Amino acid sequence: MRTLIFILLVGVLPMASCAQSDDKDKQQILALLQRQASDWNRGDIEGFMVGYWNNDSLMFIGKSGVTYGWKNTLNNYRKNYSDTIAMGKLNFDLIQVKKLSKKYYSVTGKWFLKRTIGDLSGHFTLLFRKINKQWVIVSDHSS
Amino acid sequence: MRTLIFILLVGVLPMASCAQSDDKDKQQILALLQRQASDWNRGDIEGFMVGYWNNDSLMFIGKSGVTYGWKNTLNNYRKNYSDTIAMGKLNFDLIQVKKLSKKYYSVTGKWFLKRTIGDLSGHFTLLFRKINKQWVIVSDHSS
Repeated sequence: MRTLIFILLVGVLPMASCAQSDDKDKQQILALLQRQASDWNRGDIEGFMVGYWNNDSLMFIGKSGVTYGWKNTLNNYRKNYSDTIAMGKLNFDLIQVKKLSKKYYSVTGKWFLKRTIGDLSGHFTLLFRKINKQWVIVSDHSS
Repeated sequence: MRTLIFILLVGVLPMASCAQSDDKDKQQILALLQRQASDWNRGDIEGFMVGYWNNDSLMFIGKSGVTYGWKNTLNNYRKNYSDTIAMGKLNFDLIQVKKLSKKYYSVTGKWFLKRTIGDLSGHFTLLFRKINKQWVIVSDHSS
C-alpha cells in the first residue's frame, strides 16, 4: 500500500508542481501587463518600460518599422506620446497567452487608447522570456 | 586514455547532434518560406497556404484584425489578392530566426510585394511549431 502511494505521489507531484509553476509564470506575465497599463495611465513611460528587456537586443516592430534596444524604444514612445493627452488611457484585451517553453511565452492581444484627441487601437504580439527569474518582453510587434 | 576519449565523446556528441538538429530545423523553416514565396509568385495561393497550420486554431493578425483558421485565412488572401496583378511578386528579408524550444521557432522579417498597381511592404512575426515532424506557421502577425 505504501509503495502504491509512493508511486502515485512520485507520478503526480511533478505534474502538479509543473502546473503550479505554469500558473505562477502566467500570473507574473499578466501582473506585468497590468502594471504596464497602470504606469502608462499615470503618464509614467519609464515605469511602463520596466516590462521590456533592458537590452540593446530588445526588438520593437511598430508602424515606423523595427527599433532595436530598450533606450531607442523608450525614445520612440516619448516622441510618439509626448504628454498624458497623447498617451490617453491604455486598456487591452488578451487574445492568447501561450506557453512555448520554460523560458518563453507568447502573448497576443488588442490594445486601446482612449484619448480626448482621438482614440487609437491595434493588436500586439509579445514574446516574453524569463531572464534571471523575471519575465520580460524581448520582442513586441504592435500594429 | 580510452576512458578519456569516451568521456569526451559522451560529452561532445550530444551537443554536436543538437546543433545539427537545430541547423536542420532552421533549414526546413527557411525552405518553407522560400517555397511560400515561389508559390505566391506563381499565383498559387493554396500552395502558399501549405506553409500554414491546417487547423481552425491558426491565428492570423493583419490590418483587418484577427482571423482564426486555415480556411478563413485562405479566403482573406483570396479576397485581398484576387489575381496575379494584385499578388505581384513577393520577396522578404529575414530579420531574426530564433529557436524558442524543440517545438517552437519565432521568425521576424520584412515582406515586399512588387506590383504594377503599386508596391506594398511591411513586417511579419511568425510563430512556427513542429507538428508531426513538420514545421508549420501557427500564428502570423503581419503589418
